[in-house]
Order: sequence, then structure tokens, then C-alpha cells
Amino acid sequence: MPHIKKIFFRFIVLFFFVCCPLFAQKDYKLWLQYEKKTDSPIISDYLSNIKGIIALENTATSKIAQNELQIALNAMLGSQFQVTVKPEGNHKIILGSKLVLTPEIQKAIGSDFERINEEGYIIKSVSIKNNKHIVITGKKDIGVLYGVYSFLRLVQMNKSIKNLHLIDAPKTNIRILNHWDNLDRTVERGYAGFSLWNWQKLPDFIDPRYIDYARANASIGINGTVLTNVNANALILTPQYLEKVEALANVFRPYGIKVYLTARFSAPIEIGGLKTADPKDLDVMNWWKNKAKEIYKRIPDFGGFLVKANSEGQPGPQNYGRDHVDGANMLADAVAPFGGVIMWRAFVYSEHDANDRAKQAYAEFVPYDGKFRDNVIVQVKNGAIDFQPREPFHPIFGAMPKTPLMIEFQITQEYLGFSTHLVFLPKLFQEVLESDTFQKEKGTTVAKIIDGSLSNSKLTGIAGVSNIGNDVNWTGHPFAQANWYGFGRQAWNPDLDAEVIADEWLRCTFSNDEKFIKPVAAMMIKSREAVVNYMTPLGLHHIMDTGHHYGPGPWVSDLSRPEWNPVYYHKADKNGIGFDRSKTGTNATAQYAPEVEKLFDNLETCPENYLLWFHHVSWDYKLKNGQTLWNSLAFKYQEGVDQVKEMQDTWNKTGKYVDKERFKEVQMLLDIQYKEAKWWRDACLLYFQQYSGKELPVGVENASHSLDYFKSLKFPFAPGN
Amino acid sequence: MPHIKKIFFRFIVLFFFVCCPLFAQKDYKLWLQYEKKTDSPIISDYLSNIKGIIALENTATSKIAQNELQIALNAMLGSQFQVTVKPEGNHKIILGSKLVLTPEIQKAIGSDFERINEEGYIIKSVSIKNNKHIVITGKKDIGVLYGVYSFLRLVQMNKSIKNLHLIDAPKTNIRILNHWDNLDRTVERGYAGFSLWNWQKLPDFIDPRYIDYARANASIGINGTVLTNVNANALILTPQYLEKVEALANVFRPYGIKVYLTARFSAPIEIGGLKTADPKDLDVMNWWKNKAKEIYKRIPDFGGFLVKANSEGQPGPQNYGRDHVDGANMLADAVAPFGGVIMWRAFVYSEHDANDRAKQAYAEFVPYDGKFRDNVIVQVKNGAIDFQPREPFHPIFGAMPKTPLMIEFQITQEYLGFSTHLVFLPKLFQEVLESDTFQKEKGTTVAKIIDGSLSNSKLTGIAGVSNIGNDVNWTGHPFAQANWYGFGRQAWNPDLDAEVIADEWLRCTFSNDEKFIKPVAAMMIKSREAVVNYMTPLGLHHIMDTGHHYGPGPWVSDLSRPEWNPVYYHKADKNGIGFDRSKTGTNATAQYAPEVEKLFDNLETCPENYLLWFHHVSWDYKLKNGQTLWNSLAFKYQEGVDQVKEMQDTWNKTGKYVDKERFKEVQMLLDIQYKEAKWWRDACLLYFQQYSGKELPVGVENASHSLDYFKSLKFPFAPGN
Repeated sequence: MPHIKKIFFRFIVLFFFVCCPLFAQKDYKLWLQYEKKTDSPIISDYLSNIKGIIALENTATSKIAQNELQIALNAMLGSQFQVTVKPEGNHKIILGSKLVLTPEIQKAIGSDFERINEEGYIIKSVSIKNNKHIVITGKKDIGVLYGVYSFLRLVQMNKSIKNLHLIDAPKTNIRILNHWDNLDRTVERGYAGFSLWNWQKLPDFIDPRYIDYARANASIGINGTVLTNVNANALILTPQYLEKVEALANVFRPYGIKVYLTARFSAPIEIGGLKTADPKDLDVMNWWKNKAKEIYKRIPDFGGFLVKANSEGQPGPQNYGRDHVDGANMLADAVAPFGGVIMWRAFVYSEHDANDRAKQAYAEFVPYDGKFRDNVIVQVKNGAIDFQPREPFHPIFGAMPKTPLMIEFQITQEYLGFSTHLVFLPKLFQEVLESDTFQKEKGTTVAKIIDGSLSNSKLTGIAGVSNIGNDVNWTGHPFAQANWYGFGRQAWNPDLDAEVIADEWLRCTFSNDEKFIKPVAAMMIKSREAVVNYMTPLGLHHIMDTGHHYGPGPWVSDLSRPEWNPVYYHKADKNGIGFDRSKTGTNATAQYAPEVEKLFDNLETCPENYLLWFHHVSWDYKLKNGQTLWNSLAFKYQEGVDQVKEMQDTWNKTGKYVDKERFKEVQMLLDIQYKEAKWWRDACLLYFQQYSGKELPVGVENASHSLDYFKSLKFPFAPGN
Repeated sequence: MPHIKKIFFRFIVLFFFVCCPLFAQKDYKLWLQYEKKTDSPIISDYLSNIKGIIALENTATSKIAQNELQIALNAMLGSQFQVTVKPEGNHKIILGSKLVLTPEIQKAIGSDFERINEEGYIIKSVSIKNNKHIVITGKKDIGVLYGVYSFLRLVQMNKSIKNLHLIDAPKTNIRILNHWDNLDRTVERGYAGFSLWNWQKLPDFIDPRYIDYARANASIGINGTVLTNVNANALILTPQYLEKVEALANVFRPYGIKVYLTARFSAPIEIGGLKTADPKDLDVMNWWKNKAKEIYKRIPDFGGFLVKANSEGQPGPQNYGRDHVDGANMLADAVAPFGGVIMWRAFVYSEHDANDRAKQAYAEFVPYDGKFRDNVIVQVKNGAIDFQPREPFHPIFGAMPKTPLMIEFQITQEYLGFSTHLVFLPKLFQEVLESDTFQKEKGTTVAKIIDGSLSNSKLTGIAGVSNIGNDVNWTGHPFAQANWYGFGRQAWNPDLDAEVIADEWLRCTFSNDEKFIKPVAAMMIKSREAVVNYMTPLGLHHIMDTGHHYGPGPWVSDLSRPEWNPVYYHKADKNGIGFDRSKTGTNATAQYAPEVEKLFDNLETCPENYLLWFHHVSWDYKLKNGQTLWNSLAFKYQEGVDQVKEMQDTWNKTGKYVDKERFKEVQMLLDIQYKEAKWWRDACLLYFQQYSGKELPVGVENASHSLDYFKSLKFPFAPGN
């Protein structure tokens, strides 16, 4: 066995160096590979339609747009396109925002401008004085930049650029990454190395990665970034750090990206020398007002603050007998004169509250509806617990119609296998966004609440907890790049289908070959259900191992707070398994609109994928497949394992479409995922079997180790913890 | 001012995106750029001498050699060289170690094999049956690999490959990087991001960087790597981690690199369950023997252990009333059956020892001379304090003739500006290696002690504390790559001149253009003296700020241990400045051979660059330049600043020879270095002025801030601390 292993490793080494161009770093280039095309007819077709670039504008953002277009087209089409400034010639790509367009072009665009907002773009094939051009425009230069990336995506995907008439605009205002990055460059729940922000070398050293980060974000429409962890450090608000933040803001600005920071609620004490951080204290209010002024002097377009208050040990207004409204509004008043926004997190639960943790955020926040300032937006996690492989949508969505709500997704895979497991998250995001809250009427999806269309909210947003670190490949797993990409695309358009995203991303990142795209896109789509199956099928949740949340830990019961323990969530006993949140239990179902409540509350109608989320179910209960709950649970775990096996089989056939380095990386990672899917299956089934007292059904493989073995596994330096 | 700043930043941004090819990552490729050559006569000349590659051997190492040669030549010469196995044709490069060479080739190589050791190589132009070939050979396949890199360097540098007859072999056995990497991936004194070793994903995920790391090391002859910090964690010796170490060893093996670990002396207690770690305890001895067995079963060519014992809080034999010999020999006995080596550090000093810290290592270790096992090598820092910008050579060198000694350099710039300052360290290393200890006779240089030529030592070595991290560019500063490169080259040949190294590195990394090489090589050579001048001129040392050691802190006097405080080292008072280590003081000079002692002990003969290291000197003392010490000190600080200004001027003229990304990176870093050189000058002169009571001489710029300002600066999250 060690011998075989040695041969295997030797093979790996040989494989790499024999097959790979040295130092290939396609990994770093994300979805902006701009590979030289090899199909002559396709190249000819593009070349006949693109003879050059006309740049009508000269702002920093416009220059980025021109440069990106030029470099990308040169690379993909193997040509040398010139950028000129006069609107003349034929078959040119004309770049410019509305005000700089010539009257002829303006006329050709016509009323399209009425259909976009300030960040939207129009790509239109026009004919002017018998000359054909493609105009990429928007109301502002940032729209032009977004249009350029959209246009380039067409070329990346080998799509036709004839008779173009694309009109697109983001459906949300704030499309933002939340970096949980600490000032020592560790990243809470980060699995792709460490923080990109090299505070020691800032402000004077601008790492080229900052620019590539901005490019990547702009290319998918992300327009905001919270640089620091929600578990905040007040030092970021000192001049020493603000100077560094300013430097980053200056880099990101022309890419349309605003910088935000997390505000530690006790900062007035910690760095301000005050005795209190009471939001009703005049000195505190003034301290924040002056702090805001100081920040905006440096960064006139500073986005605002993200705040985690009175949650998991963070200080907040409740420390002073005030409530979340008092805290949020005080900060809102400080940034309001400068156009700033407060993103106030609703992720709160208390160890002193005996209530079902899933109910606490709703219980606390819904009464505040309508009480927040206009520039406060409440940031609500997609589900009521904590970024699980599957959760029903958070009951707050739709329940606070007078309050702007933004959704918080977790792109980093805290509970989904870190950066080792291939899980395509847009499928998860889509499931949540499509969920019907029934809060106003049928069809009141989470997406409609988020994009403001339901309540005509002017302040809308989608946040994603970043999965980006300083690994060469940015996200630790080549396919985790798809989650960054997909998040951005869905933040722009919450109705976008995950399958469309997978298709786009694969084409831009790897290959346009249908023989590659079809199976691999299917693999991506399936991957989310696979992780649910091998980790937490049928509505199970939060049974990951302690603290680091890597691997199974359904047995964990010794943590200081009850609601941190997996046993709190699965409640397995000899009678069955699951958390009774129905009327007979905690009645969390009552937090949903009546239609949804009814659906979830009834064991018979509750969707089986949420079954154990809402019900404690007997081991012998028969599911729709006619099998007992125990058997079904076992089959689900096995199915998850089998699905990963299929993913391996799929990927192993893609060698000829993918560069060897990424091919091998994904292959190694899928091997780990398969091994760990089995670990999950074995550990969970052995553990639950203690309560069910039943044999595994035929078709489910026996565990390779004992339960004690699985319980003995320790991960002392698991990342992100 | 803020406005100007904004424009500046906008400029930076524009600069990057307008001028740079997107996602350029030359930074990552180190000195193995293999740029396509553009000079046709040069290409033609090479092409007429290289028609293909003949590979006579099929080991993993041989395959790497073939592949590297093929890919590099293809890239540089724009051709497609074939690798064949039969020794036929004309103008081929023939690869193979001694035993696989055909009789004709063996004959052509002749007695050259007698002139190399097991790692050496021969590159020879031969004529066989009227066909001309270039043979790259060695006694073993690793020699062939080293030969390939040497040959490629010729091509990288546009050198002739006609009539080649190169015979080269390393002068030391152990050429090793010491990574001070912790298991949580922080790196003690690391300034290039975090640890390369992704323990969480090992053993199953082999990051392509591991392979590139091995390539880079093999290309300069480094043949060992200590994966873990000398401030050790015993967990690395548990099966969970050894499995991961094994995976890395498997990757590195074909590149000729052995893996070593740091051994925490108390490991038998911490992970072995024993009650003691007493090296004379039978259970402890057996525990280590079994541990060694366990490791060697996984890694048959495991290098051995590096140990920091009874130093700065690390456990060691003295905890049990034993001495360093007891501890080292016990471990040596454990690894001896497997050919392992113990590298035992002599970096010891005690807070309970009132003696001059500089004297303690010598005092403790010299009496042990001849008492260590054959497979123990004592690792001695280049100077008696701690990797300062300049230190006299360590008095242990030459004083332990019966003990193998290896030198420990610090490649990472703990006391030399982190990865922000451009300092070419081979110049420092050379100064130490060339130092004459006079221990046996005149000409007994440190290099001769290290390479074993003095005492016919069979065990020799050079260690460098790694400056490598997971930054895309590996070392944080593009020019810090030169220190990794130079260390490797000097470890191979301790007599190699720093100017040769600078020339090689610049050509392989940037350009062969003489207009670039000449000024930039001169800048590199000068950079070491510059940092001495603006940080610690005239023998000053250890006056860096607390803990993190970044920036000046001559005023620091409140640390728990006296010998951690800068005031302990400079001893400035109204009478003068400097540490009296002469007979009138601590008599540390007596630790050197009489000739050296005499030189250093006498204020008049002591080299001025060590003046304040050995003497407490009056402010009015006249130096050889006729100026007072105070004036000379001030001039030195000013000179350092001026030198950095010159470095900036030099670099600013190189724009046309260097890719824009690296050009700009170095430019930004030099700007920081200039700013910080002034900071050093101002802070130190203001501080020392309190004692000298004298005005700055004409020509030395006044400080831009007050001493209080400089004292107030804090760096809460300085890296590597």
C-alpha cells in the first residue's frame, strides 16, 4: 500500500511536469482567460465585424473599458485593434456614455436609455451614414464598462455579434462582497489562503492583484466591497488604517466599486477614548459624525458601514439598553449627509433566549419594521440558521415590507466542504431567490423582495460572504471561482438561472466545446444536491464538527452554548430525528405567511427536503418513495456519495478540453470530496444508527471505520476558524 | 495635498491598466522566465548548435531534466525540439548520468568524473564519429538535472555554448532552506504572505506551487528544506501530519530535495504521553527511535531534524539537567540507523546570564567541541547576535574544529526592512564567508570552515531562513527573489562573488541588455551598504522597534528581558555610544583568534564598520575621515538615505527593459524604502542627539517630525511577529 502510494505520487509529479507548460497560471485568470481562438471561421466572422475601437470618452472608467476591450479582442482574435477617438470608418465598436455620443448615434439608440438605470448598458448594432457599428453605451461610463464586459462575454462564448440589441441593467443597487478579513490577514471562514489586503504595505504599495480583483468584480457587476470582518476591529477606523483604505478605494473607484467597512459598535470607546458607546449619548453620536466626516474627506464615495451588533459576542446598542433601531439609526445619521448606507445585520440569537434559535431574528427584527432610517438596509441571511447546505428561506423576507432588506449569501463554503468540495452555489442561491414567501400574494418570491419590486424600495442589495483569498487561483478550488462569478451575476439579476450561469462560466473559463460544456454544466448543477445528500439530507442541518465546521460532528454536545451543538439541531432519539418547529414544537412555522406555514407545518405536505428542519419524524415514518425515514436517510447519504462518484467520472473525461494543471487540480479535489462524502455518510449513519437501531438497507455501503474512529478525528489548525 | 494624492493614485491605476498586459505574472516565474529571445543572430547561433535532445535515462529526475530542457529551449528559441532516446544524429544535447552513457561518450568525458562529487555535473562539447554533441552528465541523475539548469542559464544569459567544458560540483552537502512556517500557516518573520504548505489539503491535494518551488530550488542547487518553524509544534510528528509531510517529500524527491522537520524537544510528553523528555531516559530514547523509524518508513530519504533547544523559551535537555550534547546525541542516535542528520542550533542565550549576549553561544558551545555524534552538525548564525544588517562573523566559526558547523543566514529580512526594502543579501553573505577567522592560520575564512576544507569534515552545510511565502511573487519584493537565488548559489559555492550572482539573476529574471544590467547590478551591490547606513551604521545593531523589528526603536527599554531592548545594544549616553566588548568591557573580543581579537579590541584598528559593536566611543572621537563620531554617524545616516535616492534614480531609468508590472512594483517599493530610510535617519539621529547634545552637521537634512512622533508610531499587525 505505501508502495502503491509512492508510485501514485511519482505519477502525479511526472504527470505535472511532463504534461504542463511550466508555470501555467490559467487558474489566476478566472473567467477572463481571453484565450486565443483557434476556429478560423469564427475568427474571420468576428474580424469582419470588428475593425477597430472608437473611444468617445476619456474618464478613468472609460479608459479601463477601452483597454479591456482592446486587450481582450487582440488576445482572442489574434489581431491588433486600434483605439481612435473620431467617430468615423466602418465596423467599429463605439464606446461612450450617453452625453458624449454624437447626435446620430444618440438617435440610433433612441429610447433605449429609458429602459436602463444609471448602471445599465446598451449594446446595439447601428447603421450610420451606411456604416455599420456596434455601440456600447450607458447613462454613465460605468455602464459602458459593464457593456464592454458583456460584449466580451459574447465573444468569449463564440456568440454572434451581428444585429445586436442588448439592453441590460442591474436589478439591485448594492451588489457587494463581504470580506470577513481580519487586520492580521487571517480570514474568518476563509479557505483560499489569507486576506488579499496587505495592510503592512498599503497605502504606498498597490499590489497588482487589487486591480485584477477590481476587474474581475466589475466584469460581473459587483459594485461594492466590505473590506473587513463583521467581527470587527475598531482599528480600521483609525487614520493609520483609513489611509490604507483610501488607497484601495482609489484603485477600485474607476471600476465602479465602492468601499465599505465594518463598524465596531464599541469603537468610540476603543479608539475614541469615550466612556460609552451608547447610541443615545451625544458624545457618541458626535464621535460617529466626525468619524464619518473624516472618512468621507478621504473617500468621497465611501459606501458606508456593515454592522454586526449584539450577536455572538459583538458589542451593540443592547449593551446600553437600546435596541437595533437606535444603533442603526444613530450610525445612519452619521453617514446620511454624505450619501452613506448602513447595512445592519439581522443575524442575531442569544444564549439567554430559550427560544428556538431559528425564530429569534424574526422575533427581534420584525417589530422594527418601518422604524429604520431611509439609508438603513437590514442584511438577512438566506436562512434562519446559518448558511447550511439547505435551509428554507428566512421568514423575515416579506415580513418587513416597510424596511429595505438585503439578502446575505455565503460564497465561502463554511458548511459546504471549504474549498475542497465542488459545490456550485448559484443553484442554492436560485432556490432561495425563487422561494415564494406568499407574503403579499402568490408569486412574492424572495427575489422580488430583494430587488425592491414588491415594495418599490429604493435601497436594494445582495451581499455575498467572499470566498476570495491570496491563493494564486483566488478561491482555493478552481470551481469555487464559479461561485464568485455566479454570485455577481445573480446579484445583478436575481432571476438569472443557475444553468445559464454555469454555461457562461464554463465557456469563459475553460472551453466552448459542447462535449465539455454539457456534461460539466450538468455536474455543476447536480453538485449542490450532492452535498446536501452526503452532508445533511432531508432537512438535517448544522451537524458539522465543532468550531471549524469541517466534516461531520452530529455527536457534538459539549459546547458552551446549547444552540452551537449539533445535537440541538438533529435531536435524534429512539423515537426519531428532526427539529419539531411545527405547532407541536417551537412553532417556528408560524413565522411564515399562512400558505407557507400550512405547507411546512403539516408533516404530510412539508417538502421532504425540509422534513427534519420542521419535524421530529419517527424512524419508521414512510416517505413518498414508500421507504421508511431511516432507509430514506441512508439512501440519501449513499446517493450523495454516488453523485460525487459520477462527478469524478464526468471530470475524468474532460482531460482533452482543459489545461493539465486545472484538470489535475480538480481531479485531486474530487478525489478528496469522494473520500469525504463517504466519511460523512459513514459517520452520520453510524451515529444515527445508535438511535434508530436499524440495519442499513441493501444498497448502502457499510462504514469503513468505527464511530469511535470518526469521533476521534481532530483538525487542530483547520483554516478559517 | 489630498487632491494631489488622488491624482497620483488615479495615475497609478491608469498606469497599470493602460500599460500592462492583463494578468501578467512574470513575478511568479522567478529566474526561470525562459523569455522568447528576439535577437535573430543569437537564436540562429543556438539553433545551429542544438538540433534535439537525447535522453539516455528514464528516472523521475531524468524526466524532469529532459522536460525542463525541452520546454525552456522551445520557449527561448521558438523551436520544437524533440526528445529521442538513441544516441544518434548531430548537434544533440545528450542527457544521462555516468552509468548510462555509451562507451564512446564515457571516453569523451574522460577523467572529468573524478573531479566531481555525487551531485556534480559535467557539460562538455564532444565529437563522436564526426558528430558534435553537448553532453550533460554527472555521477547521478541529480547531477544531470543540475547540469541542465546550468546549461539553461548559459542560454538565458546569451552565453556561447560552443566548446563547452564545465565541471562543477557543490562544495557543501546540505544546502537547505529553513522555513519558519507554523502549522496555522503563519510564518514567523515571514513577509511574503503565508506558508506555502496547505496542511489542510495535504496529502491529497498537491498544489502546483509545490512543484514550482522544487523546480526553483533545484535550479540553484538547494537540496533540503526544513518545512517547519524552529519554534516547533510537536504535532508535525504525529501520523496525521507525517502523512502530509510524506506527500511533500514525494513531490520534492525527484528534484533532489530532502525534507527535514523541526523536532520539539518536549514532543515525547506532548504527543507521546511520556512524563519526561529527559534525553537520558530510556523511554524517551526509545520514543525518538520509534518515531524516527516511523518517519523513515514513510520517507526513506528523510533528512533529519533541526532543533532549537533551550533558547527563547523552547524546551531542551537543560530542562532535565542535561546539556546540548546529551540532547543532540540522543536524537542523533535515533536517526543514525537511517542516515539522518541532526542540525542543532547554537543560537542560545539566557535571560539569567548576566554575560554579554554576544558571548553566550560561544561560551556554551565551544567546550562541547568533539563531543557530538558524527551525524550532528551545529547550526551557527552568521553573527553572534541576530541577523543584523551587519555583524562581525560569529566567533564560533573556527573555534570548534572537531565539530561540523553549518552557517545559518537569514534570507527573510527580519531586521532589514521586511519585503519592502530592496537589499541584495549575497553581498552580506559574501562578507561573512570571506571573513578571515585566523583560527588555524591566515586565510582560514568562514567559507573554508563551512565547506569542510579546513578540517576535512564530511558533513557540511549552509542554511538560509526562507523568505518564501504564498504571495504570487513568492518573496514579497521582486528583488527579494534575488536573495533566494543568491543564497542557493552561495550554498553551492560559498566562494561565489555577489557581483556574479547579481549579473546572473538579473539576466535570467529581467533582461540581458547591458544598459540595464550594469546600473541595476551596481544598485543591487550597493543596496546592502545602504541599509546598513540608514539603519545601523558604524557597528550599531539591534535598535529596531520592539517585537516585529520593523522601523527604528533605539528608545525601547521596557522589554521584559534586558537583552531584548535596543538600549542594551547601543548604550548611548552623554559620553558616547556603542557596546564595549573590548577588554575594558565584556571582553567578547577574546572569543576570536588572537589576530582578530587584536584587530577588534583596539579602538584604533577596529574596522569602523564594527566600531560601535566593539567599543563605546566618545561623541567627539575622530574617525579616519577626520570627522567626529557624531558627525560621522549623522553623515552615514544621510548617506544611506542618499543611496536609496540613487537606487530610485537608477530604477526609474529601467522602464524600457522591464515589464511594466514589475517595473511599477519595484518603483512603489523603492518609494517606500526612501520614505523609511528618512524615517530611520530622523528617528535615530533625533534620539541619539539627546545624548550627544550636538547639532547636525551641514549636509544632513533635518527631521520632518519630532522624536515623540516617531516614538508614537505603532504597528499592531506587523507581519511575521
